[in-house]
Amino acid sequence: MPDQSVPDQSVPDESLRAHMSPEEFRRQGHATIDWIADYWASLDGLPVRAQVAPGDVRGLLPPSAPESPEPFDAVLADLDRVVVPGLTHWQHPRFFAYFPANSSPAAILGDLVSSGIGAQGMIWATSPAVTEVEQVVLDWLAEALGLPEAYRSDGPGGGVIQDTASTATFTALLSALHRASGGAVRRSGVGGTRWRVYGSTQAHSSLVKAAMMAGLGEDAVRTIDVDASTQAMDVDALRDALLEDVEAGLRPVMVHVAAGSTSTGAMDDVAAVAEVVREWGVWVHVDAAWAGVAAVCPEHRGHLAGVEAADSFVTNPHKWLLTTFDCSTFWVRDRAALTGALSILPEYLRNAATESGEVVDYRDWHPQLGRRFRAVKLWAVLRTYGLEGLRAHVRSGVALAARVADLVSADDRWELVTEPSLSLVVFRLRAGDEETMAAMEAVNASGEAYLSHTTVEGRAAIRLAVGSWRTTQADVDRAWAALQDAAAGQGG
Amino acid sequence: MPDQSVPDQSVPDESLRAHMSPEEFRRQGHATIDWIADYWASLDGLPVRAQVAPGDVRGLLPPSAPESPEPFDAVLADLDRVVVPGLTHWQHPRFFAYFPANSSPAAILGDLVSSGIGAQGMIWATSPAVTEVEQVVLDWLAEALGLPEAYRSDGPGGGVIQDTASTATFTALLSALHRASGGAVRRSGVGGTRWRVYGSTQAHSSLVKAAMMAGLGEDAVRTIDVDASTQAMDVDALRDALLEDVEAGLRPVMVHVAAGSTSTGAMDDVAAVAEVVREWGVWVHVDAAWAGVAAVCPEHRGHLAGVEAADSFVTNPHKWLLTTFDCSTFWVRDRAALTGALSILPEYLRNAATESGEVVDYRDWHPQLGRRFRAVKLWAVLRTYGLEGLRAHVRSGVALAARVADLVSADDRWELVTEPSLSLVVFRLRAGDEETMAAMEAVNASGEAYLSHTTVEGRAAIRLAVGSWRTTQADVDRAWAALQDAAAGQGG
Ligand SMILES: Cc1ncc(COP(=O)(O)O)c(C=O)c1O
Ligand SMILES: Cc1ncc(COP(=O)(O)O)c(C=O)c1O
Repeated sequence: MPDQSVPDQSVPDESLRAHMSPEEFRRQGHATIDWIADYWASLDGLPVRAQVAPGDVRGLLPPSAPESPEPFDAVLADLDRVVVPGLTHWQHPRFFAYFPANSSPAAILGDLVSSGIGAQGMIWATSPAVTEVEQVVLDWLAEALGLPEAYRSDGPGGGVIQDTASTATFTALLSALHRASGGAVRRSGVGGTRWRVYGSTQAHSSLVKAAMMAGLGEDAVRTIDVDASTQAMDVDALRDALLEDVEAGLRPVMVHVAAGSTSTGAMDDVAAVAEVVREWGVWVHVDAAWAGVAAVCPEHRGHLAGVEAADSFVTNPHKWLLTTFDCSTFWVRDRAALTGALSILPEYLRNAATESGEVVDYRDWHPQLGRRFRAVKLWAVLRTYGLEGLRAHVRSGVALAARVADLVSADDRWELVTEPSLSLVVFRLRAGDEETMAAMEAVNASGEAYLSHTTVEGRAAIRLAVGSWRTTQADVDRAWAALQDAAAGQGG
Repeated sequence: MPDQSVPDQSVPDESLRAHMSPEEFRRQGHATIDWIADYWASLDGLPVRAQVAPGDVRGLLPPSAPESPEPFDAVLADLDRVVVPGLTHWQHPRFFAYFPANSSPAAILGDLVSSGIGAQGMIWATSPAVTEVEQVVLDWLAEALGLPEAYRSDGPGGGVIQDTASTATFTALLSALHRASGGAVRRSGVGGTRWRVYGSTQAHSSLVKAAMMAGLGEDAVRTIDVDASTQAMDVDALRDALLEDVEAGLRPVMVHVAAGSTSTGAMDDVAAVAEVVREWGVWVHVDAAWAGVAAVCPEHRGHLAGVEAADSFVTNPHKWLLTTFDCSTFWVRDRAALTGALSILPEYLRNAATESGEVVDYRDWHPQLGRRFRAVKLWAVLRTYGLEGLRAHVRSGVALAARVADLVSADDRWELVTEPSLSLVVFRLRAGDEETMAAMEAVNASGEAYLSHTTVEGRAAIRLAVGSWRTTQADVDRAWAALQDAAAGQGG
């Protein structure tokens, strides 16, 4: 028993008082759930885009943290007063900009559980269920998407939840460098070799960012032209670039394959790219951040043909698969390259399970050390929607986008810029770039719907990406009506 | 109006049916809140450490995702059946291992709000409140910790929430390389210069990981000896190392200052380190991942003396400041170095607000592009605890650790290895390393409390870190009683 000669250390009473009691947590928790339900119910009546100017939100907040506790209700009240007017509502049924960051009730509650459990799963031993549920859920999803067996956790590969596709692409590059250098890069860095990374002109900017972060610099990324009509990588141009670079003494290390480009949803040909780079042992990374999840539907797997030949694959359930941000699922064919690039074992993390080799320690799969229980929300989504429900969700996005494409095609003032890709439609006013941008801005300013832009072959275009779980045909039609009004305003 | 000639695209009905209705979300949301409250109430009776073997959790889950939807209740039921037995309970009142990853009701509900809002704040324009609330909250916390004015968002510096301290240290290194190279690294990589990074032998492993990820390799990190009794960096040894390296043609780029080392809570002397490296323009990064938040108490700021001379500073509210994982607050004196290293502006993100220069786009502050509304949980913590409540929380951890140190000192079988550091106590059995490790393992296996180990000057030691919001003196006393039983078992 504790030595009675050691006096009690008086613990300040306020400490315990400041924490919510269990009853208070239940009360405030229920109120928070209700706040969210009310927020969702209000969305239809709110402008999609925030109507504030820089500094407006800051201006409503005090300059310092309060000295004394405020009730949680005060925070909820400020959400309405300060936060909501400053939000662009990504869960709004008429949010069609960028790609969706869609959420769902199941994912939200799943992540709430993760917060409540508050486990930190940096290694298997620090909370085994955190790791094992993640492995299982990634196996489930790999199977549901028709990904190769090699990505499953019971072979040499495996999956992990990254925060974002940017991180996934970065870790793919680190793995590629590790493999290509036989481990020399982790010891002595990337200097000495003139590494080269490839991606199409349409590759997501996270590729260049990855090259910058990995110490290669942006000049190490060679961009390959695309076919003007499909916007997909010109595989012959890739071959020519590789030959030229190898001839010049450069060392190709990774190729980024866009399976659904950000701009137009263009699909590079995975199989053809893999075939071209094979002889140089180049790492093939498939970035299907947005479009990959569509493969839950057998009829929407065409763009992944050839993925068996890829070394890594990323898709974001946090974009179009109803899983609250952040949740980016990443698989590698050979986890040894990944963990070889990232593992470090300090004394304080040594443990029998790791040494047995029977477990996976996820901190060796990503830049971070600590990690929350990332898999709960995806687990909840897969179970409560079932694969049927997820297919229905994807199909509804594709069907609504097809409707938008039909509407565009049926109106002489507008034209499709590319063929619709899954749930993304890219179009413009025939009148010109300025008119197109002005029409989009008019719709966005009206708050009726929210769209974003791109340029395709040098010309401005509007992107409309369907995917929010609350979007119905009526919402798509309202957005189209707003675009027509705007076109009329442009003399269209 | 929509062209009537375009037929309705029939949206599969199941899509809408699969989503929870608002009423169902309220019901399941309340149930989830109650599940968490019940889980917390059960903790005291559960073994702290998971009692499972590798594969046990996996074995309880089906091999594939379900085809048809399951009710959310089924997920909650499986939490009890599958997950809870496989958890090591980080929120348990007798979890004393590693550093705490403490959570709090306020943080959990704050993050729940973030999920419900589902906004993606990659740039200011995609949801202004996401950025502005974060700026305000980081200014609040900087002030509360007594950090220099230069870190505030209204000057050339500013703060951002990183996921983890590992990421913060990595981005600090990228910033340092950017500044030191005048931007050349972002263009053409780290090759050509023999960069050198410094940290003590006690620096967290994330420093070496950062050097590996940044393309410098682990050999670029030169470890500096520590004083045997304080475990703090030997600043004279640092000076000698720098002189030697510069002489040899290496280029010092960053020094990592541990303000609270992982092993023993050792405090490097920030001011002295900054003074030594000044003439070479080396970036000073202060890693106060665990100990930094203690500075909410004026009496616990001593270890940050000299922080005015640092270029960057990180501390983790997700460790000891009641903010659910992940939440690592990171400040830089000059944000231009950080955004210079990380910014890329693809066409689809161009917008008037960014071009005006009036706003901050946080995707240029970290590796990720997309980001959730990270600040809500920290905002909720600062407001509902108030600075008073946070001080009380820190003081209670320090007081309980002092009690443990007294108990250790009063028992002949045990000895303190280092002076207690804030809420961390490091001690061992005088009998030897094996006995020490066996005693710890006995306590951990009993489930009564959970501790972790380290080595100090080559000898094994037990770490006991207080910090969970549910820990009381009775819990500390129970852990000590278990240690005494274990010591007796070791013939102590
Ligand atoms: C001093 C120090 N720095 C960095 C870290 C890494 O923390 P994170 O998991 O936030 O990357 C730790 C973790 O314990 C730490 O103690
Ligand atoms: C094809 C593609 N890759 C990567 C990303 C980056 O996504 P994240 O925010 O998850 O890094 C995007 C974002 O839109 C994308 O469209």
